[in-house]
Amino acid sequence: MDKYLKAALDEAYQGLKEGGIPIGSVLVLNGEIIAKGHNRRMQQGSAILHAEMDCIERAGRLTEKDYKNCVLYSTLSPCDMCSGTSLLYKIPKIVVGENVNFKGPEEYLRSRGVVVEVINDKECIDLMKRFIDENPGLWNEDIGE
Amino acid sequence: MDKYLKAALDEAYQGLKEGGIPIGSVLVLNGEIIAKGHNRRMQQGSAILHAEMDCIERAGRLTEKDYKNCVLYSTLSPCDMCSGTSLLYKIPKIVVGENVNFKGPEEYLRSRGVVVEVINDKECIDLMKRFIDENPGLWNEDIGE
Repeated sequence: MDKYLKAALDEAYQGLKEGGIPIGSVLVLNGEIIAKGHNRRMQQGSAILHAEMDCIERAGRLTEKDYKNCVLYSTLSPCDMCSGTSLLYKIPKIVVGENVNFKGPEEYLRSRGVVVEVINDKECIDLMKRFIDENPGLWNEDIGE
Repeated sequence: MDKYLKAALDEAYQGLKEGGIPIGSVLVLNGEIIAKGHNRRMQQGSAILHAEMDCIERAGRLTEKDYKNCVLYSTLSPCDMCSGTSLLYKIPKIVVGENVNFKGPEEYLRSRGVVVEVINDKECIDLMKRFIDENPGLWNEDIGE
């Protein structure tokens, strides 16, 4: 597995260990991981800290130039919120661990010029599937359903 | 002025008083304000706490049923991030104080079924214009430019 996706997956496992929803994300600038994050809905009672949001928040206030050289990795296809945040900051590329268990607005992202690369990694798929099967209510809350 | 928009504008002034970007938001459920927020980029060094995000975060973890009965008020047209968050939670209506100084993806929101009502209130317009004129760098950072 790509080392950046592996780092995102490690974040997902960290979230699971904390009793949270196992989705992880990293932000890569010029080949270097500058921030890591994971979903913190349970841990912080948060409605906005999806993995990608947590990661972008932890990256701090970057310049437009920096965002434009970033790649955002997420173990799961980004939802409307996280996709919108990528659009706000004009992050040009998103690598998605899997979109089997959930698929965000990937086509809309592409229509706005974002490169969306979907890996469909088996470990990402299995981790998410297991969590959803065991926690359907929490999962539905996380995707607004 | 509509009392809800007035409450959002009060939040914008509160942000300004704190040395922040003067954008405010309230979330209204069945006619009652259940959360208020304002942009906290400066105050918390945040890349994600736009007014609407701060407001939705402060509302806490709501149910799908509650979100579907909410109206989100913002003094300024919501950006891609805040629009995406409204879409995630299927908030059916957004009232926008003004879209003269900045216009987010209102047409996209409408294409996804959201009612977007734009007031273009003079006080909202003037407050934002004054801030942008005096702080162009900070403003550009907030909209990813």
